[in-house]
Amino acid sequence: MRFDIISCQPDLLESPFSHSILKRAQQKGLVEVHVHDLRKYAINKHGQIDDYAFGGGAGMVMMIEPIDKIITELQEQRTYDAIIYMTPDGETLNQQTVNKLSLLQNVIILCGHYKGVDERVRQHFVTHEISIGDYVLSGGELGAAVLADAIIRIIPGVLNDESSALTDSFQDGLLAPPVYTRPATYKGMKVPDILMSGDAPKIEKWRFEQAVERTKQRRPDLLDD
Amino acid sequence: MRFDIISCQPDLLESPFSHSILKRAQQKGLVEVHVHDLRKYAINKHGQIDDYAFGGGAGMVMMIEPIDKIITELQEQRTYDAIIYMTPDGETLNQQTVNKLSLLQNVIILCGHYKGVDERVRQHFVTHEISIGDYVLSGGELGAAVLADAIIRIIPGVLNDESSALTDSFQDGLLAPPVYTRPATYKGMKVPDILMSGDAPKIEKWRFEQAVERTKQRRPDLLDD
Repeated sequence: MRFDIISCQPDLLESPFSHSILKRAQQKGLVEVHVHDLRKYAINKHGQIDDYAFGGGAGMVMMIEPIDKIITELQEQRTYDAIIYMTPDGETLNQQTVNKLSLLQNVIILCGHYKGVDERVRQHFVTHEISIGDYVLSGGELGAAVLADAIIRIIPGVLNDESSALTDSFQDGLLAPPVYTRPATYKGMKVPDILMSGDAPKIEKWRFEQAVERTKQRRPDLLDD
Repeated sequence: MRFDIISCQPDLLESPFSHSILKRAQQKGLVEVHVHDLRKYAINKHGQIDDYAFGGGAGMVMMIEPIDKIITELQEQRTYDAIIYMTPDGETLNQQTVNKLSLLQNVIILCGHYKGVDERVRQHFVTHEISIGDYVLSGGELGAAVLADAIIRIIPGVLNDESSALTDSFQDGLLAPPVYTRPATYKGMKVPDILMSGDAPKIEKWRFEQAVERTKQRRPDLLDD
């Protein structure tokens, strides 16, 4: 899978993609991540990519022309399955959308900044608008990193132990049950006896009950769907 | 405001905090961000901070002892208003929570990894459990960066134009209206006439109507609250 991320703050994205699982996924050849500096497509030699909003008001708006230029250049090289714009008023990301997007081949992610992009970019170029949650960030870069991370970790072969992703929260519509590790007693705090019993079917049953209970208490909305 | 972020992948967090608004907020002395390497508090010289889950199953669990040691060390130096654990089964982050958290002084953010932390950490140390959305990431680091970014940008003095944050999506319970910038016509695509009228009250009214309409179409749930 190939990601082309368009950003006016490409430096922000350096470390998230050069460590840990995202780095390994690229080294294994399962994923390519290309971060593009939108300022290279600026409308003038001052590197201008934004301007004041028509109609007045605080905050700058990202211009259509630089975005048109870079998207057109990328599309001349390959076909893209999705051009995703990260924006707080987009469709709220969830694990089902992550699963679906992980099946695509080539994806462009456009990071918003300031007050966002000129509406015409959204109308004429963007195919998906995604929000990572109901809060506002200083730019779309962290949203793009979150989206790419969520997708990349479920691509087969990326995680060492594939069953690890299948037992995550949300994959079965439930939150994950509590987990414990050594030591069995730490400063008087004990691990539940059942987990020390060695009785695998009982442990599975306990985990399922705990997952249901936790979901009921914390996220009853997940059980309604 | 001071953030102490505890992570077993501290390198991941390098670039998000050393650029853009998050860097400026630190340079202005409005915010301190300290990223701590949990491996320095490992239980042995091999740097061990995780172990297999009691009861079996895929994935590793972060041990209580290293986390206890670093949190205790930090608490000996100052009082913390919140010890936040980033986890997909935590309370879903929204702008209201961001606004509330931005009033705190000292905050610890604990990044989960693998299958999460030993449940006893959550029961005995953690005061807030926060999820940035209904999807699973390869670790809590990007969640911590998202949370810190959302909080830091609304601290007074961080954004150059303070009214910029107040007109964001969610701050008034509505999504933001569409924005446009120059040129007025680009490859035949035009800006709405109203925005070129210079009639400020009419433009305000149009923007409000557009915000309501967009919220109705995309996020009717926001209007129910």
